[in-house]
Amino acid sequence: MFAKLWLDDVVDNNGTVVTNNGFDTGNVVYINTVKELTTRKAVSGLKVVLTKASDAGLSDEGYEIKKSGDSYEILANNERALIYGAFRFISLIRLNKDITAAVREVPVSPLRMLNHWDNMDNSIERGYSGESFLFKDNDIVIDDRTVYYARLLASVGYNGVVINNVNVKDAACDLINERFIEKVSKLSAIFDSYGVKMYMCLNYAAPIDDPEVGSADPLDEKVIKWWEKKMDYIYEHVPTLGGFLVKADSEGRPGPFTYGRTQAEGANMLGRAIKPHGGIILWRCFVYNCRQDWRDTSTDRARAAYDYFNTLDGEFEDNVIIQVKNGPVDFQVREPVSPLFGAMPRTNEMIEFQIAQEYTGQQRHVCYLIPWFKEVLSFDIYARDAKSDDTTVLGVVTGKTYKNKLCGICAVTNTGNDYNWTGHDLAAANLYGLGRLAFDPSLSSEDIAGEWIKLTLSDDPKVVSNVTKILMMSWPAYEKYSAPLGIGWMVHPADHYGPDPDGYEYSVWGTYHKATCKTVGLERNSTGTGYAGQYNKPLCDIYEDPATTPDELELFFHKLPYDYVLKSGKTVIQHIYDAHFEGAEDVVVMNGLWQELKGLVPDDAFERVTKRFEHQLSHSEYWRDVINSYFYRKTLIPDEKGRALY
Amino acid sequence: MFAKLWLDDVVDNNGTVVTNNGFDTGNVVYINTVKELTTRKAVSGLKVVLTKASDAGLSDEGYEIKKSGDSYEILANNERALIYGAFRFISLIRLNKDITAAVREVPVSPLRMLNHWDNMDNSIERGYSGESFLFKDNDIVIDDRTVYYARLLASVGYNGVVINNVNVKDAACDLINERFIEKVSKLSAIFDSYGVKMYMCLNYAAPIDDPEVGSADPLDEKVIKWWEKKMDYIYEHVPTLGGFLVKADSEGRPGPFTYGRTQAEGANMLGRAIKPHGGIILWRCFVYNCRQDWRDTSTDRARAAYDYFNTLDGEFEDNVIIQVKNGPVDFQVREPVSPLFGAMPRTNEMIEFQIAQEYTGQQRHVCYLIPWFKEVLSFDIYARDAKSDDTTVLGVVTGKTYKNKLCGICAVTNTGNDYNWTGHDLAAANLYGLGRLAFDPSLSSEDIAGEWIKLTLSDDPKVVSNVTKILMMSWPAYEKYSAPLGIGWMVHPADHYGPDPDGYEYSVWGTYHKATCKTVGLERNSTGTGYAGQYNKPLCDIYEDPATTPDELELFFHKLPYDYVLKSGKTVIQHIYDAHFEGAEDVVVMNGLWQELKGLVPDDAFERVTKRFEHQLSHSEYWRDVINSYFYRKTLIPDEKGRALY
Repeated sequence: MFAKLWLDDVVDNNGTVVTNNGFDTGNVVYINTVKELTTRKAVSGLKVVLTKASDAGLSDEGYEIKKSGDSYEILANNERALIYGAFRFISLIRLNKDITAAVREVPVSPLRMLNHWDNMDNSIERGYSGESFLFKDNDIVIDDRTVYYARLLASVGYNGVVINNVNVKDAACDLINERFIEKVSKLSAIFDSYGVKMYMCLNYAAPIDDPEVGSADPLDEKVIKWWEKKMDYIYEHVPTLGGFLVKADSEGRPGPFTYGRTQAEGANMLGRAIKPHGGIILWRCFVYNCRQDWRDTSTDRARAAYDYFNTLDGEFEDNVIIQVKNGPVDFQVREPVSPLFGAMPRTNEMIEFQIAQEYTGQQRHVCYLIPWFKEVLSFDIYARDAKSDDTTVLGVVTGKTYKNKLCGICAVTNTGNDYNWTGHDLAAANLYGLGRLAFDPSLSSEDIAGEWIKLTLSDDPKVVSNVTKILMMSWPAYEKYSAPLGIGWMVHPADHYGPDPDGYEYSVWGTYHKATCKTVGLERNSTGTGYAGQYNKPLCDIYEDPATTPDELELFFHKLPYDYVLKSGKTVIQHIYDAHFEGAEDVVVMNGLWQELKGLVPDDAFERVTKRFEHQLSHSEYWRDVINSYFYRKTLIPDEKGRALY
Repeated sequence: MFAKLWLDDVVDNNGTVVTNNGFDTGNVVYINTVKELTTRKAVSGLKVVLTKASDAGLSDEGYEIKKSGDSYEILANNERALIYGAFRFISLIRLNKDITAAVREVPVSPLRMLNHWDNMDNSIERGYSGESFLFKDNDIVIDDRTVYYARLLASVGYNGVVINNVNVKDAACDLINERFIEKVSKLSAIFDSYGVKMYMCLNYAAPIDDPEVGSADPLDEKVIKWWEKKMDYIYEHVPTLGGFLVKADSEGRPGPFTYGRTQAEGANMLGRAIKPHGGIILWRCFVYNCRQDWRDTSTDRARAAYDYFNTLDGEFEDNVIIQVKNGPVDFQVREPVSPLFGAMPRTNEMIEFQIAQEYTGQQRHVCYLIPWFKEVLSFDIYARDAKSDDTTVLGVVTGKTYKNKLCGICAVTNTGNDYNWTGHDLAAANLYGLGRLAFDPSLSSEDIAGEWIKLTLSDDPKVVSNVTKILMMSWPAYEKYSAPLGIGWMVHPADHYGPDPDGYEYSVWGTYHKATCKTVGLERNSTGTGYAGQYNKPLCDIYEDPATTPDELELFFHKLPYDYVLKSGKTVIQHIYDAHFEGAEDVVVMNGLWQELKGLVPDDAFERVTKRFEHQLSHSEYWRDVINSYFYRKTLIPDEKGRALY
């Protein structure tokens, strides 16, 4: 069983679900009854005419919705865009938006994707909402949920989904082979029918196991031919496939480095093999030394992606996209923006976020990430050699800055086979929000939250108001009660959950804060690892000096004494204490706001979220007390306000 | 496949293996060729006469070996003791000991047992030498190895073995039911044939699942009857069973506390039920609050066993033994001796050691524990109301102090299905040594090491000398490079392996050191948790004051400033630095001693141990650097000798 989220199907006048598989344009389409909302009267039987109109001046994915008499018309270049438009139409109706004037929308981000880290044994790497609904018992699962999932993605504007984990092992190696290819084809067709391209991850080392090849060297003729033949085979069976996402030379995954080749040589080999089929290669930049000696102070993991990739600008094939994590390290609650977004004018770039709350409460804590993503996207990275005025991250990844077509926004997904899809009911706001944000980045975080609340919980004003407040408080709260001032990584290494201030201090992962009794933080400016110098001016200068570095990133960039006075006027140590007390207090407030909603939201959702809040209340106190006590024990500097430290 | 350790079978003149199943006394017995030693000439065909002689003045387990003409005679009261004698005879021959004069030996410890933490799914809790050889696929395994294992135990004087994990779950609940009882009987008979009693762990909550009972209240008539009937059933099928070991009210295990009953009431209920069958109940004292709030400074896990049990002295049935861990916490490399050994004059006590190297290098580091066990056993606990001059732990657990018959020495075993039984070849010295030590505690650690080396590796003098040195250095080395001055617990919580100085600081387990930038250690005297007061005089006074507390336990008992000067003349901080540098250096020495033995010990053993030393060399450096850097960062006090700290 699973919950139905936000939108239902669009059904034509023959009772057929309208999909990308083709339908008679000009037909009248009826809108299903709105079933999920209990507080509004049902709307059904609205007449809509879907019209293909390539002369309407809309891009391939845009649409126009307009009222004509007692019915409506939706115009778009193709079926796919018509489906987006139809879903948008339902959404506008449900949201009681005024659509007497025409609505004309074109998605801003060319690619809007989710990445699954689902394994074929049913597990999900960093999954916090049950097991996979895509794979089980080393086989592909195709059932009602598959269809509903495709619809769910399309209905908020996603146009791509990567179905399997980037760490391709065991059965997943056979997704491109005879064993699974027919099911892969079927699955891809389902996504395609809703206008969503399916992608897969592949094992870069695959040709090694072919005794005729025995290598994965991207410049080896035999390897090249092997992949060409493989891509021919794949596309013969799965013509709707979007392409592949590849993690190479990272955390034990093989890659071009094994053969002394560059990341570009590796990616291009695949890019050229897939090009005849119109496919694309997404090449992850998550390459770093994951066996670092913690005693080594010269290596800095934050530098790695830039160091490996920036010199390759211009060398990638035009159907290759490099997929760059939002920050230089790994999805912490706060990081600076990756400098790679400012450094690759001749390369397609995709930004990778993570809505799976790996480091942000694992869907046991509420943490609405859209405000954070908006902050990252709107960040001026001063992209070098820009072809427009827009030098923000958003400009770079949406093609505005460099006038390229292949680029976009993706996120590691937070879905699983839990009834409510995302473990925490409120985590679905991230699933909804990322899709909407990629489609229309001009939407505010509050707008998106409001839409989601109305479409899923209730449009009762108190519900909208309280849940919006909860969502908007949640990410800042998590930042406050977890690791301070951009330092990150104060979590248990094995599961990335709960406080462990020294958890990563003596490990191989390159993630250290080196707190002593006098100072805390890592020097990443020119007197330290030099990471700050990877940014274009003026950012490199700003991050060079603690006086100009924003408070929230001070300890990411600088080693500071505990009595250093921040821009807020507080010392580092007092900031730590205050933030942690405030953060835990914020959870009390959020829980209070939720408790006011009993009877106003569906009972089961109320109970589920209440249970999670019970945990978050005690766990945020635990975070508060551990981090504060850690620093108190390190310094014995008392809290100015005399609150309890242990 | 598995290695054959130390001794072969005793075979009579009909070629039949001599076991406890009965044999014609007076028969001539031949000794098999010694196969394992490569450096000594084989000895075979020795004539020995085994004689039952209840008038020889030997206890039930003693024997006398004497030469008569060109053959030998072994005298004992019964078959079991004759087998011990026969094994001892082989051992003496192999060790080239002079046996022209009669050898007369009686085991000192009444019970000499090993506890398996083997689960029926084949796993071993805290097992470091492969999987279980007793259980697999939720069934009992009986094969050649079973027989060899029984012989192995008997050959060094063990007289009891508990076959399953104290945490009794799933299939193991059925060891006392029809599902497994016949196999249990067969297994028990095999052990018995070598003079070793088999014991099992039971699930205290078992009668809850019987709908006729639905309770485990030890004072409930229905529960009492249930266990009486159950014991009748068990002994009808397994007449050779020794009894049961029970872990109750601990770490999630149910027990008498659930019903507001005392530990004595719980244990006695089982004791009375098993008494008609001559069985005994071993009741573990490992009872503590395992959900402690780390912010709570009043609770002290070290106090728990004493607090729960000392008031129950005299209340236990005479066939009940309380099984007390050597120290008050949990098998750390250094702990004070449990005060319970001095506090229960009218109660049978068994000491529980752990040769599974859970906290002492997990059989990847060499750590010969016999010197540590000897230190514990010879410790004068000033046992109250003693009936003899011997107030040591050894006196208490061997019946000398209180003139009781049921008491003894046991250890959690370090065996598994690895080829060499114990993962690290040198860890077998602990398996051998604990048996020998319990039989004859007057043996020195070096004596035991020497015997073991000659019986298993070689009697080449260089091998004996070097391996003895390695073994004797190994426990002190591990203590030096791991947690300092008795503080313990600076390990990764999940697997108890490798340094994690704050790993247990903010957890529920009651194991804290509370290091700040000024002090380290827990105050456990009268100004602190009062734990020191659990000892009889003069120990309570000695541990009350840092000035009289031995250096190696200072931080267990006291919170001390880093510049506190120890009896060694060093400050606490300098002691930490020095010890950690020395400990890692000791590993270099031990490895050097081993490397000299290439060609002198069997090649496969040489390679296996060399591999483990490679790991120990780097891992001891890792321990050194992490612990030293932890304290350096806390204090910024430099090493007097200017060595590298990070």
